[in-house]
Amino acid sequence: MSVLLQVDFPYAGPWGDTMSEAMRELAESIAREPGLQWKIWTENRDAGEAGGIYLFADRTSAEAYLRMHRARLLGFGVPRVNAKLFDVNQTLSAIDRAPAGE
Amino acid sequence: MSVLLQVDFPYAGPWGDTMSEAMRELAESIAREPGLQWKIWTENRDAGEAGGIYLFADRTSAEAYLRMHRARLLGFGVPRVNAKLFDVNQTLSAIDRAPAGE
Repeated sequence: MSVLLQVDFPYAGPWGDTMSEAMRELAESIAREPGLQWKIWTENRDAGEAGGIYLFADRTSAEAYLRMHRARLLGFGVPRVNAKLFDVNQTLSAIDRAPAGE
Repeated sequence: MSVLLQVDFPYAGPWGDTMSEAMRELAESIAREPGLQWKIWTENRDAGEAGGIYLFADRTSAEAYLRMHRARLLGFGVPRVNAKLFDVNQTLSAIDRAPAGE
């Protein structure tokens, strides 16, 4: 059953197109992570935060990714990483047109 | 440009199929909210939390929904509501197969 991983952290830029350029190779490597169905990249310039919403095929993949990614972000100099894992309620999500897997 | 709304809060159940049954009408009403593209319903029984990840067509719709939904949740007895709004980086999200709209 799909597992949703919600991550956000303080972030000082780059933003928008410059962020896209700077993070392209990282995004390409994330696309190859075991169990990843998709990631939405999030950014809020006004709040000084960025993050991601991920859907994984199972909890084991999501937890393994989070361990690696948290260490990577701290290595990038991010001061703290907020992360939560959730099961997806498929029945309610389907009513609300969600792209939430199986 | 699509705006992502991330919401979570302390929650004591019901969970799973019982939650689906209890919240069906609410999900049907949320499907009709102005500007909503989709909502993923999230739940974590071990952590005692639930929430939602929403994609809206624009920031105005997302902010209006959040004001209404926060008041509704507090009315349900939820002690606090964690909510963050983000822009979606479409280029990076597309690389990671995300269903993140335009």
